[in-house]
Amino acid sequence: MMRTRPLKVALLGCGVVGSEVTRIMTTHAEDLAQRVGAPVELVGIAVRRPDRVREGVPAELITTDATALVKRGDIDVVIEVIGGIEPARALITTAFEHGASVVSANKALLAQDGAALHAAAEQHGADLYYEAAVAGAIPLVRPLRESLAGDKVNRVLGIVNGTTNFILDKMDTSGAGYSEALDEATALGYAEADPTADVEGFDAAAKAAILAGIAFHTRVRLDDVYREGMTEVTAADFASAKQMGCTIKLLAICERAADGRSVTARVHPAMIPLSHPLASVREAYNAVFVEAEAAGQLMFYGPGAGGSPTASAVLGDLVAVCRNKLAEATGPGESAYTRLPVSPMGEVVTRYHISLDVADKPGVLAQVATVFAEHGVSIDTVRQTGKDGEASLVVVTHRAADAALSATVEKLRGLETVRGVASIMRVEGE
Amino acid sequence: MMRTRPLKVALLGCGVVGSEVTRIMTTHAEDLAQRVGAPVELVGIAVRRPDRVREGVPAELITTDATALVKRGDIDVVIEVIGGIEPARALITTAFEHGASVVSANKALLAQDGAALHAAAEQHGADLYYEAAVAGAIPLVRPLRESLAGDKVNRVLGIVNGTTNFILDKMDTSGAGYSEALDEATALGYAEADPTADVEGFDAAAKAAILAGIAFHTRVRLDDVYREGMTEVTAADFASAKQMGCTIKLLAICERAADGRSVTARVHPAMIPLSHPLASVREAYNAVFVEAEAAGQLMFYGPGAGGSPTASAVLGDLVAVCRNKLAEATGPGESAYTRLPVSPMGEVVTRYHISLDVADKPGVLAQVATVFAEHGVSIDTVRQTGKDGEASLVVVTHRAADAALSATVEKLRGLETVRGVASIMRVEGE
Repeated sequence: MMRTRPLKVALLGCGVVGSEVTRIMTTHAEDLAQRVGAPVELVGIAVRRPDRVREGVPAELITTDATALVKRGDIDVVIEVIGGIEPARALITTAFEHGASVVSANKALLAQDGAALHAAAEQHGADLYYEAAVAGAIPLVRPLRESLAGDKVNRVLGIVNGTTNFILDKMDTSGAGYSEALDEATALGYAEADPTADVEGFDAAAKAAILAGIAFHTRVRLDDVYREGMTEVTAADFASAKQMGCTIKLLAICERAADGRSVTARVHPAMIPLSHPLASVREAYNAVFVEAEAAGQLMFYGPGAGGSPTASAVLGDLVAVCRNKLAEATGPGESAYTRLPVSPMGEVVTRYHISLDVADKPGVLAQVATVFAEHGVSIDTVRQTGKDGEASLVVVTHRAADAALSATVEKLRGLETVRGVASIMRVEGE
Repeated sequence: MMRTRPLKVALLGCGVVGSEVTRIMTTHAEDLAQRVGAPVELVGIAVRRPDRVREGVPAELITTDATALVKRGDIDVVIEVIGGIEPARALITTAFEHGASVVSANKALLAQDGAALHAAAEQHGADLYYEAAVAGAIPLVRPLRESLAGDKVNRVLGIVNGTTNFILDKMDTSGAGYSEALDEATALGYAEADPTADVEGFDAAAKAAILAGIAFHTRVRLDDVYREGMTEVTAADFASAKQMGCTIKLLAICERAADGRSVTARVHPAMIPLSHPLASVREAYNAVFVEAEAAGQLMFYGPGAGGSPTASAVLGDLVAVCRNKLAEATGPGESAYTRLPVSPMGEVVTRYHISLDVADKPGVLAQVATVFAEHGVSIDTVRQTGKDGEASLVVVTHRAADAALSATVEKLRGLETVRGVASIMRVEGE
């Protein structure tokens, strides 16, 4: 049974994602109506630059007054694809106050203020959906908060930033250095003019915060996520990785501690074995592993960004939120009942791959090994190569607390026989 | 805000899946309550053999009278993990009539009678959820009917049967024949004593019907699915596949026709390139590719069967259905508004790999090529090897209608110079 009165939708932002959302809402209106159970009408599009040419976007819907649009009072759903903290936050809050539900693609805002926004949604009986905020079109938020709602997620491990994966993939396949690979990514439109948010891991960290919060039913904010970018990964690191049968990926890792009493969330480059499915995720694709107690290991793979994939995720949420509106119900809101604290990076248990330049004389290996032992870090393998009085030691450790590993490296740097620490990288996915 | 009055759940069937559902509901009761918003209580478990020892299953909940259990009138949700058509169908229908929603893992029933069951659910304002019916713990039903609700799915291609994937993987890696690999699968518990449903493709065909119906918003029944099992795949086929840089998988393929006016669904063994992600799906794992207009290519991977993974999917649905109950709403029901017809296999456009034993004399290739041309089938590659008057011709075609390919093969069989058709296999995933 189809309702004839349409649900009214306001769109905030009409860049790459917004114009694709508009295109699909216009060209697939009949399908959306059938799937929702009522027509869905786009009644206004707020933009900053109204004079910009936007093909296929009805000019009569364009406004520069986003606040007036969300305050109309007859809006059922607001779609926010502006990004950034303000004015997005104020507009979303105003939307809730005026009876609208919200679909957002804003990872930065959700990672920083998700709890307050969820509270505002609940207070006003509205929905806040944001599948598009994490890994574009890949269904992750819904599987984690609905499909796995009866399971216990222990780990989320993935590639959630397409720009950095493109750069690392280029470095891996062509032997290029970071700058060269970044230039290629920029030329092809995979990296923005200012790539900081991507290459320094801020974007991935925001996604890690959102995923960890949903996976572990607790609050994780951007500030809780340990973050290392990938600008210092070198061609030499890739060469070391290859020797170990590994490649290097920028990973987002969310884990429940072994005792179950805390969680961790981190983003950093890491070596992973070539046999691991994440190793073969090429170019700008994203992929996320989820390990749950009953389900086992699941993997989700697809395009992590781009106008169309992000629009697909936005529209899936739009259909769900519209259905909820018709049913006068709301979908699942924030679930943070476990109140598990987020532990600092020092408590993360991981493995290190360390390259040392050392003096090539008897006793050096014993001295280095003693430092590891003193810090309770067990060594898995050591490879020693040397010539002309200089030698290189590559040490791969067993699993140990990150703090113990850092302290070990610090102590090694102080040894007279250690000329330098050429590289340190964590090893994951084993 | 937690409701204190519990939601009451009845479980039908307590085998591998049912006992795992019971275990999780018992040991994770507090988590389920938090996620649902009310306690969830298992009030009865209907079994055929009450005297069987079931560790961790409360004896006082066991009953042999399933009908009386679903007729109690105070049951909020019935979980059906009996399998098969009857008595499952009658019990589910009775459950709806008595006000319960239903979570089912029953692919055979849904593929045969999904439309009638959905209608019964809608009539009684109840939910019918069945994530566990397709690919175990891998979220597929929910992503297709919710995450991609604003998108247009054009293709679903996947490995949805773990038993046959295990057998084919063994044949591929060890060079074993079908019987030997089946024996190993049986010994390890991956194949049932009567493996017919798996190896003849019935199980995969039921899943294909369910996936096609959801993906294309139309009705697809088991009888609409073209089905070929994998019992005739030989070690020689694997050798041919290797020469082409391929492996062989039993695939379920659901496609929208190029003109958008019909759909097809089929299950058969096929060669796929080793570079395709499905080629590296090992042992009993499942993986499904979904191609949608805006989202692009997505892949979902995980354990496709087993007690725990299937229980995870059942419990995810249970949480969703319980939330809907509390909100006095229902989730998305059947969506079959496109009414797209299902075309027969002859209209499917695909490629063939054909091995022919031919007489080794001049003109044979020309004769064979003429037969292809007469049927409008374009040849991609031909490889000819011969000795002692006998020769082998391996032909790989371009894409053509399956009917034209079949007719071509039929005509080839009649040629005097063709001694035999050694193997025919479709080629997919390119």
